[in-house]
Amino acid sequence: MTGGTFDKEYDELTGRLYFRDTHVPEMLRRGRCRLDVTLETVMMVDSLELDDAARARIVERARASRERAIVVTHGTDTMVQTAAALAAASLAGKTIVLTGAMVPYAFGSSDGLFNLGSALSFVQVLPQGVYVAMNGQHFQWDAVRKNTDTGTFEAI
Amino acid sequence: MTGGTFDKEYDELTGRLYFRDTHVPEMLRRGRCRLDVTLETVMMVDSLELDDAARARIVERARASRERAIVVTHGTDTMVQTAAALAAASLAGKTIVLTGAMVPYAFGSSDGLFNLGSALSFVQVLPQGVYVAMNGQHFQWDAVRKNTDTGTFEAI
Amino acid sequence: MTGGTFDKEYDELTGRLYFRDTHVPEMLRRGRCRLDVTLETVMMVDSLELDDAARARIVERARASRERAIVVTHGTDTMVQTAAALAAASLAGKTIVLTGAMVPYAFGSSDGLFNLGSALSFVQVLPQGVYVAMNGQHFQWDAVRKNTDTGTFEAI
Amino acid sequence: MTGGTFDKEYDELTGRLYFRDTHVPEMLRRGRCRLDVTLETVMMVDSLELDDAARARIVERARASRERAIVVTHGTDTMVQTAAALAAASLAGKTIVLTGAMVPYAFGSSDGLFNLGSALSFVQVLPQGVYVAMNGQHFQWDAVRKNTDTGTFEAI
Repeated sequence: MTGGTFDKEYDELTGRLYFRDTHVPEMLRRGRCRLDVTLETVMMVDSLELDDAARARIVERARASRERAIVVTHGTDTMVQTAAALAAASLAGKTIVLTGAMVPYAFGSSDGLFNLGSALSFVQVLPQGVYVAMNGQHFQWDAVRKNTDTGTFEAI
Repeated sequence: MTGGTFDKEYDELTGRLYFRDTHVPEMLRRGRCRLDVTLETVMMVDSLELDDAARARIVERARASRERAIVVTHGTDTMVQTAAALAAASLAGKTIVLTGAMVPYAFGSSDGLFNLGSALSFVQVLPQGVYVAMNGQHFQWDAVRKNTDTGTFEAI
Repeated sequence: MTGGTFDKEYDELTGRLYFRDTHVPEMLRRGRCRLDVTLETVMMVDSLELDDAARARIVERARASRERAIVVTHGTDTMVQTAAALAAASLAGKTIVLTGAMVPYAFGSSDGLFNLGSALSFVQVLPQGVYVAMNGQHFQWDAVRKNTDTGTFEAI
Repeated sequence: MTGGTFDKEYDELTGRLYFRDTHVPEMLRRGRCRLDVTLETVMMVDSLELDDAARARIVERARASRERAIVVTHGTDTMVQTAAALAAASLAGKTIVLTGAMVPYAFGSSDGLFNLGSALSFVQVLPQGVYVAMNGQHFQWDAVRKNTDTGTFEAI
């Protein structure tokens, strides 16, 4: 987990959105997920604030992981850049799927649970490589962009 | 769609659970799903009430479908039986994934959105055959059972 | 608390509605309620199963209470009968407001939180007596009935 | 309705909170409210941005209203100032109750529905005057402040 809209909360004292803990464990419980999952919160940031050093840290954690299948929850704004950084690292033997949400999980209308179910499924079946899973679809890391007008991911 | 817990509603006049329309279109909107999906409500029943004739109708609709990838939403109690009926029909070239929910989508704590995201993802990537997608996992139709004590699906 | 639709939960193993613990503490937290409230679960039943002995127990607990303002959460089907039983007990000096819900709190679409806010407000301001608070309104115990066709309470 | 946290929405393209339409009609439906209510959206603003001119407009709409009981939904930050402005206008014969929310209704954890049920109940029973209804309590307009550390309203 790296943060992103997925994990934003509403601060009722300031009226602003912020990060506290990740919602992923609660989401896995709600999805009655029975996969053997190891969770790691690498950072908890808005992906617009993710600089090269932070991106390098995500790559480093993926490299250090002993898992062959890795889902990275991530803000949507720079998800494609992080996917490229992960691809550039040539992590042989690993399938890495990045996913996120357009609406925080804490909101009733969030797409987060759908996307988490989707990413966890793709990561089990896709061959090694780096992918983005959003909108029910999966994309190769170098064949996708976020359309900021529609808020959806599309093939390029 | 064939009904199942997925689509149960609370009837506030009788205090009972019942079926009205499917929630799948609303769920796809919430998941910001951009897949090209054709929806068909084959029936709207509790899977405990699904007899051979009803099951034959589900098989028939799957056979008639021009889609190569089919997700069947279904009650969990007899999901494995319907999977077996679909497998027995030898629908060459089709990937069929059955999914459902332990808690109605209309409840806040439903696993339905997670499972729908999961099933729609598996169906795009798995080779032809008949599968059950529940609890974040996928199972071959003949290698799974519902554990009624835990309410989860497990490999056999 | 006496149960009622308010507090029904969905049992994901049996697919039936049942009672576990009351949701009222969680509802008070969600409403950021700052009233000095003492909670007591008298029973946890469907009000259709509430017999004279159970009703007498509710009256007894209201009589024993040292509070001057009492909210009784109750199933809607026999709420008016329990209101009558409380009125017959002539509990001088007490304002008692019965409320409930048409949809369980655990469902996204529940009226429970609205009704709880309403009942807790009426009970602070109304003169002594026994009332039903539903649908944003309050009724004297002997001037109300549940309209089972519309699922709403109305003056008689 | 004047806006406030109550009615904030999440803009999934910008990641910011904003106002669109009020949620009050949906909230009244969810509360199964049967009161004869006339709704008027006077403005849709964050109460921190409410200046004297805007406040005068709220007072003017209250004066022009033919209702004897008026609920004003309002941001919590300057709710007490607007209550004072309404009190200064000496609107004889009217009971005016201001309420709001600490968390947007669109979030699962909102206090909005509780507060709306509370305000609509207080306004029917309290004598003429101007009040704030928050946290399950009611306060005279000149005997309340918002504690910005706790996010609750308290008597002064």
